[in-house]
Amino acid sequence: MKMANAVVYAISDSFEETAAAVAKAAAAQFPGNDIIIDRAHCVKDRMAIDIIIEATKHLNSLLIIDMLQKDLKDYLIHRAMENNIAYFDIMEQAVGTLSNIVNQKPNLVPEATYKLNEEYFDRMEAIDFAVKYDDCKDPRAIKKADLVLIGISRTSKTPLSIYLATKNIKVANIPLVPEVVPPRELFEIPRDRIFGLITSKQKLNTIRMERLKAHGLNDEANYASFERIDYELKYADQIMKDIGCVILNVADKAIEETASTILQILKEVNASEKIRLQF
Amino acid sequence: MKMANAVVYAISDSFEETAAAVAKAAAAQFPGNDIIIDRAHCVKDRMAIDIIIEATKHLNSLLIIDMLQKDLKDYLIHRAMENNIAYFDIMEQAVGTLSNIVNQKPNLVPEATYKLNEEYFDRMEAIDFAVKYDDCKDPRAIKKADLVLIGISRTSKTPLSIYLATKNIKVANIPLVPEVVPPRELFEIPRDRIFGLITSKQKLNTIRMERLKAHGLNDEANYASFERIDYELKYADQIMKDIGCVILNVADKAIEETASTILQILKEVNASEKIRLQF
Repeated sequence: MKMANAVVYAISDSFEETAAAVAKAAAAQFPGNDIIIDRAHCVKDRMAIDIIIEATKHLNSLLIIDMLQKDLKDYLIHRAMENNIAYFDIMEQAVGTLSNIVNQKPNLVPEATYKLNEEYFDRMEAIDFAVKYDDCKDPRAIKKADLVLIGISRTSKTPLSIYLATKNIKVANIPLVPEVVPPRELFEIPRDRIFGLITSKQKLNTIRMERLKAHGLNDEANYASFERIDYELKYADQIMKDIGCVILNVADKAIEETASTILQILKEVNASEKIRLQF
Repeated sequence: MKMANAVVYAISDSFEETAAAVAKAAAAQFPGNDIIIDRAHCVKDRMAIDIIIEATKHLNSLLIIDMLQKDLKDYLIHRAMENNIAYFDIMEQAVGTLSNIVNQKPNLVPEATYKLNEEYFDRMEAIDFAVKYDDCKDPRAIKKADLVLIGISRTSKTPLSIYLATKNIKVANIPLVPEVVPPRELFEIPRDRIFGLITSKQKLNTIRMERLKAHGLNDEANYASFERIDYELKYADQIMKDIGCVILNVADKAIEETASTILQILKEVNASEKIRLQF
């Protein structure tokens, strides 16, 4: 087994993922290396810090620090310097600069960002909505939703709905199946609230084959055939053109990327305060 | 209307949320100020940068930059300096230090972290699983799940399941209702895969009242009464003790915090590689 070249340790005194995100993004810039990413959330005492220092001091380590409790952070930095461990504080410069700009000392309370406020409950409601109305369980959802996703099976409607729900957007998703008439509500709402998802035949074939394998459904192999996929995609294309909605190709796109495109389009066509706030 | 004291602008050439997370966390340290947080994702050209500079140059602004495309970033920094706009590059120091540690130049490709790999498809499957088996739609899910959440109505089972799914964990959630016998599968799986969620009576009352209001269900007001809540919580407590599972109080906890606690416990009791990798 090859030894790891480096360890990047993301350390936070809250449950924030920011340090870990920086760690991952930085590590991704050095392909071919075996870089271990480890993380500690909610670091609340010196013992936790001592354990991290012990675990990293004999390795090629970089500590990425997202901590606001001053005493603890000072202790961590002191121990890192003592052991020649490289470190980087991701918040310090942003907080310091902002402190100058607003001419106020920072709070330095790690919990400051995690209030259970109205926005938080709205987000929970949006997630409940997406789950409850997944896969067109009730076409009345179409009129209640902030936006509606349509597409054939395995065009990532569900995960995209959920991801958008975490941005406080209520999403209904409607599967398009040639054998099933689409709900009439789809034709009764503004078309700029509807997004059609398509993808490549090759991608759909791969994803559907995987799914069949996972479910041991060899007898439904038609589901993954190129003929069936081609038939379904043509059917979906016709429905989407009839509606006149935006069509997005999700092949080779991450959910986050498609979501970002959708939110950008909504922001442009829709000056609604709600959508505006997601940015 | 009070004028905003400051604008924090999170700028990324990918669809990453890291710069926005730093912006939010920094702004949260200065309560009482009216700090606008704005963001631009997928900034791909100089025109997009010029628009940002125009929008911020006459304000008290801080640019938080998460960009890897060197030419574009250089242009942005040049324009920021020219207009005396404060800026902070969140990736530079992490990438630079790691470059020294692994003795290799960085790739500087923003897409480096967003491959549609196996982990990504697993995550999509986990989200599908959480949605499909939400609210005990099929008790067979209990045996297929990586972990099972139990609790009475409005203890955040669904959003927590979804959040854990985004960490590649397959979660089934089972509502506890005094009038319904819990599925026998709950007593047939290892108890360390089950987590019981409870919360405070006050919190439940508030959340359930909100829900009744949102659904116009005044005739079901018993749902939010303290007597009913007390009865349900005692029932749930008995079931959780019978099972012998970990019980977590989610009152005043954000979903991310409860999820972090669950993952930490699983990591300790379970050396499984899968759970390990979520950290």
